[in-house]
Amino acid sequence: MYGEIITIGNELISGRTLDLNAGYAAGRLTAAGLRVTRITSVGDDHEMVAQTLAKALESSRFVIVTGGLGPTDDDMTNEIIAAALNRSLRLDHTMLEKIRTYLEMQGRKMTASIEKMAWLPQGSRILNPDGAVCGCCIIEQGVRLYFLPGVPEEMRYLLDKFVLPEILKSFEDIPFSGQRILKIYGISEADISEILKKLRGKMEGVVLGFYPRFPENHITLSLSGKDRAAVTGRLDQAEKEIRSLLGSFVFAAGDLNMEEVVGRKLIERGETISVAESCSGGLIGHRLTNVPGSSLYFHGGVIVYSNQSKIELLRVNPTTLETFGAVSDQTVREMVRGLRKRFHTNLGIAVTGIAGPDGGTREKPVGTVYIGLAAESGIVSAGYRFIGDRKQIKMETAMMAMDWIRRYLDGNSFLPGI
Amino acid sequence: MYGEIITIGNELISGRTLDLNAGYAAGRLTAAGLRVTRITSVGDDHEMVAQTLAKALESSRFVIVTGGLGPTDDDMTNEIIAAALNRSLRLDHTMLEKIRTYLEMQGRKMTASIEKMAWLPQGSRILNPDGAVCGCCIIEQGVRLYFLPGVPEEMRYLLDKFVLPEILKSFEDIPFSGQRILKIYGISEADISEILKKLRGKMEGVVLGFYPRFPENHITLSLSGKDRAAVTGRLDQAEKEIRSLLGSFVFAAGDLNMEEVVGRKLIERGETISVAESCSGGLIGHRLTNVPGSSLYFHGGVIVYSNQSKIELLRVNPTTLETFGAVSDQTVREMVRGLRKRFHTNLGIAVTGIAGPDGGTREKPVGTVYIGLAAESGIVSAGYRFIGDRKQIKMETAMMAMDWIRRYLDGNSFLPGI
Repeated sequence: MYGEIITIGNELISGRTLDLNAGYAAGRLTAAGLRVTRITSVGDDHEMVAQTLAKALESSRFVIVTGGLGPTDDDMTNEIIAAALNRSLRLDHTMLEKIRTYLEMQGRKMTASIEKMAWLPQGSRILNPDGAVCGCCIIEQGVRLYFLPGVPEEMRYLLDKFVLPEILKSFEDIPFSGQRILKIYGISEADISEILKKLRGKMEGVVLGFYPRFPENHITLSLSGKDRAAVTGRLDQAEKEIRSLLGSFVFAAGDLNMEEVVGRKLIERGETISVAESCSGGLIGHRLTNVPGSSLYFHGGVIVYSNQSKIELLRVNPTTLETFGAVSDQTVREMVRGLRKRFHTNLGIAVTGIAGPDGGTREKPVGTVYIGLAAESGIVSAGYRFIGDRKQIKMETAMMAMDWIRRYLDGNSFLPGI
Repeated sequence: MYGEIITIGNELISGRTLDLNAGYAAGRLTAAGLRVTRITSVGDDHEMVAQTLAKALESSRFVIVTGGLGPTDDDMTNEIIAAALNRSLRLDHTMLEKIRTYLEMQGRKMTASIEKMAWLPQGSRILNPDGAVCGCCIIEQGVRLYFLPGVPEEMRYLLDKFVLPEILKSFEDIPFSGQRILKIYGISEADISEILKKLRGKMEGVVLGFYPRFPENHITLSLSGKDRAAVTGRLDQAEKEIRSLLGSFVFAAGDLNMEEVVGRKLIERGETISVAESCSGGLIGHRLTNVPGSSLYFHGGVIVYSNQSKIELLRVNPTTLETFGAVSDQTVREMVRGLRKRFHTNLGIAVTGIAGPDGGTREKPVGTVYIGLAAESGIVSAGYRFIGDRKQIKMETAMMAMDWIRRYLDGNSFLPGI
């Protein structure tokens, strides 16, 4: 069940475009129990594509090729593939019709360069014959070759809807492959490593992967086997062990992200929230509102970048600002008190800090951030010193603020501090 | 001057981690006039690494290898390389000292798995001997092999500071390679293609690349040649042609992004700004405040997700909301009027829309967004129908709002509308 991915495009090897297709395809194939052994990116170059394809045919059962199928001059995959596989190009009428229909919908006309897309290597079978998105399959020396467009949305659609099911159907006895992802925040990579050492000998074949994803850390648990129930059982046990060691630092599992976790908990608890952002500049609001339906619990916020806006919108006392500074525990407490009143929400969260690169002092260096959370029961606040550049400090600030909401809603006590 | 990039890690071929290193290295090498012919990702697997390295040695003058240099069990690059190149591993004392110093700073102890990092293939030369970040160089069969860590920040640091200068110094006669990037917004890909057809025959060897980067489109102009002045002159001419065709749709060149362009213009003009965000949820504020020094012109904003907050914070008339709806031209005009007063800024920008997936109607489908801009001279407003999912609609909204500010500051007239 070994396979390879080949992505074609000068934009990839020149670093102009980040290759999103290879990673996506690799992830989907792996999750389905298949194994990707190599990902190769080459330019729109006959020799390199031919060489890479020949190499892949030697040792793979399937090959996913993306890119170079479009209408522009540098889209030459069909020609290159035909030459590499020693097949002729022929006009595929199904493909031509697809293209014609699509152009008509857009009120555009057929041109020679667009027609080129319908000239496919002999023996190609079109994927998705009834849809607008084009791709094809060729079986060569028993190896399944799939040619997909480089546009990520189109590639993903064809891969998930046609390619993966076909590959899985064509191979028997693919072992069940289970994977878990645990997402961790608020504890350093080094501390996690130390804690996870206690797992040695308890994992029963479950493979751990550790992936720092600033400002989060992710742990994967992987196991393959013929018996689905046995694999699942051992993964359950391993996950339980890890959760017991890391406790509430595990904020999510699987594909969920922090804002989704927070959103679900707010809905469960029937709470509403507003935000007051200084150094994060709107990022907390942005992330909370990335979740569909967030208007149910998120009422809004203020981005109080200037002192004047802190005074006027949140009724922060000018004396507080003068005495303790805009970045201070006192200020953040007044901010969050004013915020909650202003938005009439159950909860309020406020942040104020120095994102840099300028504005730091000896006492309050760049990265100093105060967070305050207000609820009916009162206000909690604390200061942090985050490490990183401007964007990273904004990211940490937003993440930590959301983590406070999560922990508050879980009834966790938390003792943050500089 | 041909070279390759090899990235090593099970997390890459399983799709667990997006390969950021290959693209970065490719971009930097290409920009320096070198040519990357292939990027290969393989797992932490002896056979695959050895095979890939052997292949690279056949046709490349330099090879950049990243990943697998860390302390964990799956970091095996040193061993694999030593075996592949038929060299023994030896303890490098400089490296050991570096690691020891670093651990001391962190208050941590040397362990066997950390010490492993100091066992390097014979003939390795350490890059960055005086710094904390570790990497090394091996010359094999006249090919320069560079082994760099997989942590993106560390890889980038070593690549830029040591690897690139070394490679450039070691090769003579690298032709000068010029590249321009023009960033375009507000005009469709299809329309740009049509317009650029007029360039045929005028490009004098300058190679055009076209890269949709939602919601922007980027055009690259590339040319290599011995004579730097000639290359620059022809690129200048080509850039001028394109700019004359696309006019003010070109919002930036090079590495600049929209928020930086807007920030510079605000500073030049001595204007200040505030934002009122509904559907964008804080994204405009977030992007504007990503720019260091943005507090000079950005005073703050409100995220008015609920109707009540629109009324209370921006003094939108409840009757307006009732009669025309929160997503309407009338509402956005009242929002931006209230905003500018509230923040005392020269300019104000407001957005209100339906980001979806729910909330759309026949008259106002998902993607309907109104934007309003207020200045001393008055208010302009208009509606759009953006296409995409929730995040894309937020991105379009923020981008279009910033583009309004840019166009206003440039004195452009603009005629947006549904």
